[in-house]
Amino acid sequence: MMRQAGRYLPEYRAIRSKVDFLTLCRTPELAAEVTLQPVDILGVDAAVIFSDILVVLEALGLEVTFEEHAGPRLSRTINQASDFVPLAHGQIAESLSYVGESIRMVTKELNPRNIPVLGFAGAPFTLAAYAIEGKTSREFLAIRKLMRTQPSEFTRILDRLAEAVAEHLIAQIEAGAGAVQIFDTWAGILSRRDFDQYVAGSIQKTISMVQQKHSVPIILYVKNSHHLIESLSYTGADVLSIDWRTPLQEARRNAGMHVAIQGNLDPSILYCPPSIIQDRTRKMLLQHKNPGYIANLGHGILPDTPVENARAFIDTIKAWRYE
Amino acid sequence: MMRQAGRYLPEYRAIRSKVDFLTLCRTPELAAEVTLQPVDILGVDAAVIFSDILVVLEALGLEVTFEEHAGPRLSRTINQASDFVPLAHGQIAESLSYVGESIRMVTKELNPRNIPVLGFAGAPFTLAAYAIEGKTSREFLAIRKLMRTQPSEFTRILDRLAEAVAEHLIAQIEAGAGAVQIFDTWAGILSRRDFDQYVAGSIQKTISMVQQKHSVPIILYVKNSHHLIESLSYTGADVLSIDWRTPLQEARRNAGMHVAIQGNLDPSILYCPPSIIQDRTRKMLLQHKNPGYIANLGHGILPDTPVENARAFIDTIKAWRYE
Repeated sequence: MMRQAGRYLPEYRAIRSKVDFLTLCRTPELAAEVTLQPVDILGVDAAVIFSDILVVLEALGLEVTFEEHAGPRLSRTINQASDFVPLAHGQIAESLSYVGESIRMVTKELNPRNIPVLGFAGAPFTLAAYAIEGKTSREFLAIRKLMRTQPSEFTRILDRLAEAVAEHLIAQIEAGAGAVQIFDTWAGILSRRDFDQYVAGSIQKTISMVQQKHSVPIILYVKNSHHLIESLSYTGADVLSIDWRTPLQEARRNAGMHVAIQGNLDPSILYCPPSIIQDRTRKMLLQHKNPGYIANLGHGILPDTPVENARAFIDTIKAWRYE
Repeated sequence: MMRQAGRYLPEYRAIRSKVDFLTLCRTPELAAEVTLQPVDILGVDAAVIFSDILVVLEALGLEVTFEEHAGPRLSRTINQASDFVPLAHGQIAESLSYVGESIRMVTKELNPRNIPVLGFAGAPFTLAAYAIEGKTSREFLAIRKLMRTQPSEFTRILDRLAEAVAEHLIAQIEAGAGAVQIFDTWAGILSRRDFDQYVAGSIQKTISMVQQKHSVPIILYVKNSHHLIESLSYTGADVLSIDWRTPLQEARRNAGMHVAIQGNLDPSILYCPPSIIQDRTRKMLLQHKNPGYIANLGHGILPDTPVENARAFIDTIKAWRYE
């Protein structure tokens, strides 16, 4: 279910009532504990490590704070690659060693149960959006302006972020992650032409740096990517993870057969009564008969989803057999 | 250029330095003056009346305030249709008579110059999103939850809004608007299936109520609509206005030949140097050789666009001749 731990679980809220979000990310014992919660409570097939996409920006010298209901804020914004703290190779992984430690703890628990652990990181464009805007944005004026007026500097920023993200993903794989996900929350604001020209290369670079070291599956999620599917299929990712706006059969048609597809129930459907959840989940499963399909939500599970509804979703998938 | 008047014009900023945004909307002399600015300064082919999509919610009893850099806030939120102030037929138009007055003043000035005036309103779903969330939202949790858990009540809300929007559009046409635009900023968050099931009917109702009274062209803009084009072509709108994420030739292919297409340069391209603006504008124009095409931006012009760049866009279009 993408970000699997979360406020919809009373067990998670109990821990969060004692520590703030970032402390939870940075404390391996607690991060490991909340990572395991959905595995035990819902019986999902894999664990997604509890962390945040913005930790890479912290390693690069941008302090992050989370205000309740307002999303993340950065202590400063950047407009050139040299605004990041210069770090030698290996220092990103070192500064984020607590993520590796969380993964090692979860792996130790789940390896005997044959349940894989997934690592993840934000994609260069999405991290650049936070670094340049300083917060979540509605119009992304600052990053769009930088991309249009200083395309070379913009590329240097994405390039630096690609290296940092790759280093973080490699460290997670070496700590035991059996697959990694790259989350591009915001690249869908671009036309396909601009995505291809300005952004695709930074995703390709990230993926190819990881693949040069390890051969675990790499999952690429781009939100709002209906117009980008074909381009995404050329990034080198093994799996395209799509949101609810692209019908699965259309994703398969536009992506070709060389990538697996993951997704894509609208997480707000988990607000419906269980009978409707079952029906919509089955209709989702019916859309994709090929092998190379991973049933999932189309975005992270929403905060106030009833646990029994999340369970109806998981149980429907686990009971499903293609004829 | 969709919302044509705005902060990119020094002449607009001069007026806005004296009155706040809502006062400007509600004062016909001033609204008419800023409506005329882009016509005189840039030479656009039509004037778009200066107003705001949220005035219809004000007429329905929800007070709106604009905080600088934070977007609109509503004084209260609704979760059922009866939370709107009950109004008899005609009272919406009466309460928004200042918009009609602005249109009459602009029409008087532009009729002798053969320049049409465009009226507009927000679409029912987008207005419902503001009424239910109380502000701009990132995740639209409240409206998605209402749609999933109380679909009949959700439909009643859209239904009431469709009537109110139609009444407002009809009043604008009767005041002299030569065409009207319906703006659906947020319907693109829905899958096509959910759009068809829950939202399309409210747009169809709005359009058909207007068409029963008048035969002016109706333009429908839905942001982020790449996955919805075919459905939008069945709403009864005469023109589909699309954002920069749908290539024009793809919009034409998916919409069929029974609607005109309007759009769709990414407004952030107006941050580029004029030579690039000319190139990208020409490439846009080359994509659509059919009649039934209106050159435009793919969303409202951005606040800090240099005026000479907006002029480069308009001049390139006006100089263009299809061979």
